Amino acid sequence: MRQKPTVLAREIVASSRLFRVEEMQLRFANGVERTYERLVGKGVGYGAVMIVALEDAEHALLVEEYCGGTETYELSLPKGLIEPGEDVLVAANRELKEEAGFGARYLEYLGELSLSPGYMNQKIQVVMACDLYPERLPGDEPEPLRLDRVNLHELAALMQNPLFSEGRALAALYLARDLLMQRGEFHP
Amino acid sequence: MRQKPTVLAREIVASSRLFRVEEMQLRFANGVERTYERLVGKGVGYGAVMIVALEDAEHALLVEEYCGGTETYELSLPKGLIEPGEDVLVAANRELKEEAGFGARYLEYLGELSLSPGYMNQKIQVVMACDLYPERLPGDEPEPLRLDRVNLHELAALMQNPLFSEGRALAALYLARDLLMQRGEFHP
Repeated sequence: MRQKPTVLAREIVASSRLFRVEEMQLRFANGVERTYERLVGKGVGYGAVMIVALEDAEHALLVEEYCGGTETYELSLPKGLIEPGEDVLVAANRELKEEAGFGARYLEYLGELSLSPGYMNQKIQVVMACDLYPERLPGDEPEPLRLDRVNLHELAALMQNPLFSEGRALAALYLARDLLMQRGEFHP
Repeated sequence: MRQKPTVLAREIVASSRLFRVEEMQLRFANGVERTYERLVGKGVGYGAVMIVALEDAEHALLVEEYCGGTETYELSLPKGLIEPGEDVLVAANRELKEEAGFGARYLEYLGELSLSPGYMNQKIQVVMACDLYPERLPGDEPEPLRLDRVNLHELAALMQNPLFSEGRALAALYLARDLLMQRGEFHP
């Protein structure tokens, strides 16, 4: 492990309802000094979860939602914030019921992905959900989400779908497919 | 295509050297009104590029860099900003030379990934680079990056490496592997 840079100073330089920007003065081990900026949590973050929900042996559920960042409707995986004290698998099942109208009898934790570690400290937990059954919980979405699906054989093609773009969702889908392949439950 | 919400108002509510937060008042097609926040570009963005550089038939290069967001050294793919007017493949080759000390004789555009479309409009272009040769260009990094590699057979295991976390980098690696597999140039 390399020696981390020394933090000479920290300061919150901008803040809004959802975002906070911290400026850091850093001195690297070689003596070089730099000013970095990063987004930091608002102190209410218990993390987030993203769900690869398998409808059958080769299809995963997608939801279409209005995205404020890109100002378009986009397809992605069901996801949402983990509530205070909530177990990550419980949060995954709750979000799946709220966003997609399904619960899962089997949930498995796949790991954690970061968003953009150079500039943000946000991480998302990835959960695979199988053996689905219809169950809907009311969520906080302004309108119902449209449900869609992707064939796990066609993930490279999903990248070409103009409605789909999210890198970490694509990573989660590939990761689930990779694990199913290793277990002999998916055949390329 | 669904009817997009009407934007009732927009306002920049926070701003720093790198980040700008816009608040949007939205009215959805069903009449529900919501306040959204998103990060918008600072008006100098020509986008970014991320490179899957193949050292041989089954290894891709990784670089270890200090990440201000997570305050750790992390392994990820070489990446960087595209300069004004610069072609995406030219930018990929330049970043590869600056960050990893290699140029590529063959470069192929794989597609575009978004970061977090709900909250940001940032996108990154993914480029695959093959037939590498040693060439170093001076970059803007505060210190030289340590070079590493990942075996494309071991992407699911990479997720367990505490030094690696970036979702879109994992997506780019899986995507390159998938294309190589489809072409019969990689065997699982």
